[in-house]
Amino acid sequence: MTASIVAIDTQDIRFPTSRELDGSDAMNPDPDYSAAYVVVRTDAADGLEGHGFAFTIGRGNDVQVAAIRTLAPALVGRPLDDTLADLGGLWRSLVHDSQLRWLGPEKGVVHMAISAVVNALWDLRAKREGKPLWRLLADLEPEEVVDLVDFRYLSDALTRAEALDILRSAREGRAGRERRLLAEGYPAYTTSPGWLGYDDAKLTRLVREALAAGFTQIKLKVGADLDDDLRRLRVAREIAGPDVRIAVDANQRWDVAEAIDWTRALAPYDPWWIEEPTSPDDVLGHAAIRRGVAPVRVASGEHIHNRVMFKQFLQADAIDVVQIDAARVAGVNENVAILLLAAKFGRPVCPHAGGVGLCELVQHLAMFDYLAVSGTWDDRVIEYVDHLHEHFVDPVRVRGGRYLAPERPGFSAQIRTASRAAHRYPDGVAWVADRVPTSG
Amino acid sequence: MTASIVAIDTQDIRFPTSRELDGSDAMNPDPDYSAAYVVVRTDAADGLEGHGFAFTIGRGNDVQVAAIRTLAPALVGRPLDDTLADLGGLWRSLVHDSQLRWLGPEKGVVHMAISAVVNALWDLRAKREGKPLWRLLADLEPEEVVDLVDFRYLSDALTRAEALDILRSAREGRAGRERRLLAEGYPAYTTSPGWLGYDDAKLTRLVREALAAGFTQIKLKVGADLDDDLRRLRVAREIAGPDVRIAVDANQRWDVAEAIDWTRALAPYDPWWIEEPTSPDDVLGHAAIRRGVAPVRVASGEHIHNRVMFKQFLQADAIDVVQIDAARVAGVNENVAILLLAAKFGRPVCPHAGGVGLCELVQHLAMFDYLAVSGTWDDRVIEYVDHLHEHFVDPVRVRGGRYLAPERPGFSAQIRTASRAAHRYPDGVAWVADRVPTSG
Repeated sequence: MTASIVAIDTQDIRFPTSRELDGSDAMNPDPDYSAAYVVVRTDAADGLEGHGFAFTIGRGNDVQVAAIRTLAPALVGRPLDDTLADLGGLWRSLVHDSQLRWLGPEKGVVHMAISAVVNALWDLRAKREGKPLWRLLADLEPEEVVDLVDFRYLSDALTRAEALDILRSAREGRAGRERRLLAEGYPAYTTSPGWLGYDDAKLTRLVREALAAGFTQIKLKVGADLDDDLRRLRVAREIAGPDVRIAVDANQRWDVAEAIDWTRALAPYDPWWIEEPTSPDDVLGHAAIRRGVAPVRVASGEHIHNRVMFKQFLQADAIDVVQIDAARVAGVNENVAILLLAAKFGRPVCPHAGGVGLCELVQHLAMFDYLAVSGTWDDRVIEYVDHLHEHFVDPVRVRGGRYLAPERPGFSAQIRTASRAAHRYPDGVAWVADRVPTSG
Repeated sequence: MTASIVAIDTQDIRFPTSRELDGSDAMNPDPDYSAAYVVVRTDAADGLEGHGFAFTIGRGNDVQVAAIRTLAPALVGRPLDDTLADLGGLWRSLVHDSQLRWLGPEKGVVHMAISAVVNALWDLRAKREGKPLWRLLADLEPEEVVDLVDFRYLSDALTRAEALDILRSAREGRAGRERRLLAEGYPAYTTSPGWLGYDDAKLTRLVREALAAGFTQIKLKVGADLDDDLRRLRVAREIAGPDVRIAVDANQRWDVAEAIDWTRALAPYDPWWIEEPTSPDDVLGHAAIRRGVAPVRVASGEHIHNRVMFKQFLQADAIDVVQIDAARVAGVNENVAILLLAAKFGRPVCPHAGGVGLCELVQHLAMFDYLAVSGTWDDRVIEYVDHLHEHFVDPVRVRGGRYLAPERPGFSAQIRTASRAAHRYPDGVAWVADRVPTSG
């Protein structure tokens, strides 16, 4: 009998992170890191499940779960082998659904729901093939990789033939890079010292800890108050010295002119990049800011909602650093497209991570990029935030400021069963325990 | 006692329009026009309700309803008078919610949910003031209008001071324009003849009917098959003669190069504009298409998801025609911003309508624009599709190819109670009646 997908289970999982001020920045003062979680179940004898999630920061996680449920009828009953063998075709059928696309198209809640489902299917495929996802992707033939990509709306910047050329060129030196990856791990940077809301003593301590841990790049949140930013950047630079890269992140706080003025004011402390200076939709605004703040680099991506937008950011010379997010665009397939675009335009990819599980996911994409797409990790770093990894079955391992390559089969997406139960919203113990009792 | 908002009621309302092939185009072959409907209830003695909706085309309407429900805690309990007196402040509090914005920001399901709620509050305010919305808006002082607009991310293209200048300049001749509007109605065009899936006989009949009804512009859907498009355009042009404007609409079907080639192929039939030639996110793509197909105009907007995107389409000279939609961006306030941007850049606004209730809503915005913003209806037309108006309490009145100005207080958004009950999904009679009985 041929195995099929038999169920799409969903859960609303939220971590009460706003109680700690972890993750506070100029636009997101009180996030509760959350996962609209999906488990793809099959009737295959192996009993394997595909796990995935959309990441949110609290309110609306239920809407995200509802959107994932809306995709279930398109998946349940599908033959398993055929579906996993053609995830490019599946991606197109979900993204171009003739009715659901009205709610985007290709953006927001529905697109993130597709991300969760597509990533869960990749998790399942990687488990079935007994490989971590980075290796599964890197082992594909170039033709198989381009079949994952929807070139619709991209052909003025990247054709299928150009993508094949990029992938074929990257075969040179592949074995040596894999040895280095396994031996050294992929470079990381840390945002842990940089949140708003930490006092100078905590900032000082955390920068020292980051340096001691081997990081050569850190990131500070900015944008709420210029004097405060200058003070914090001065403290960090004094401790870090001139050789450590200090990126700054405004989380969309500014308009164009203000972004230029504020970044120039920070320039004496040599920021490596300014991240999300303005609206993530504003391609032309970023281009103007980039011209205005050079040589400070401009970075964006965690809220850039699809490959058509990334295409334009590259076409317009609007960003120096491409920050893919594993769960914002529609999953692995769309991120492969974005990696190929970045390679075509010669821009480094430095993935966004943090939240809950974003580090676990995106490390696979960066390692695939190193082995099979850009073929380099020069000026590439994966963000690292030391939050919530203990809830994962296969948590990231960061040693000496680098991500060690995952070894377990899958996409490292699976949250422990007990953690999921405890953080189920609103009735998990993490949420019930602190409620005011209604009777003695 | 001060009145408050006491409830946000929602309904999932769907019309089974896919059974008739009405509304079929190259990307949307089978829409079921739907409304994620909201009623704002208060405890005011007048008993008035605010009605609004997000428009969808079927699947996912439940997700849209879930998103509207997520906004209820931000509204219920608010003092009514203060809220209605500061809808600019309300808009900012909803759009910049520190957790919900992660699901956009400012795009997709959450943004459309805000649209529904904001428009419902405008409906309520207009009912309470005893005016149709177009008149309420046009009667505001320029300072009150700019207070509705969030200039965040716009200041590189439009400042508050520039917006005030536009509004003050438009006061000249206002009384005469209002007399003309009331006497003649606002110009319209019709898409009724143009859907894919109609045969030549039906096309011929519908074009003749459109001309007889007084329309001087029609629109045909294109993009599925070039030979078919050429044939239908030839038929339409032969019947219409050289003076009737024939717009064509590709509904995002093409990549950039194909859009240019296809539109040039249609050029012998003198299309007035090409609408949605490619992805609605592709500002730079539209700019390239516009350069490639001139003198054919480029139009877009029904899927342009917020004011930051419209700003860029105007900055990049990417569109000739600005097609606002009443329920895509976050309601009246954001459309006021877009009308001001279009006036600043000197581009005509030709609203998208059709679906269910979009004509009813958007006519108010076009009439406000004529009276108080652009001050002209030259080359401006509101789309008209003759679908589903019978379900509205205050349906549009189109006579001689023009929209007559609404007279009833409110935003014309209210669907009849009986229609809402019959089309409630999935248990309304319109959906239950055609199911296969499960027993004899």
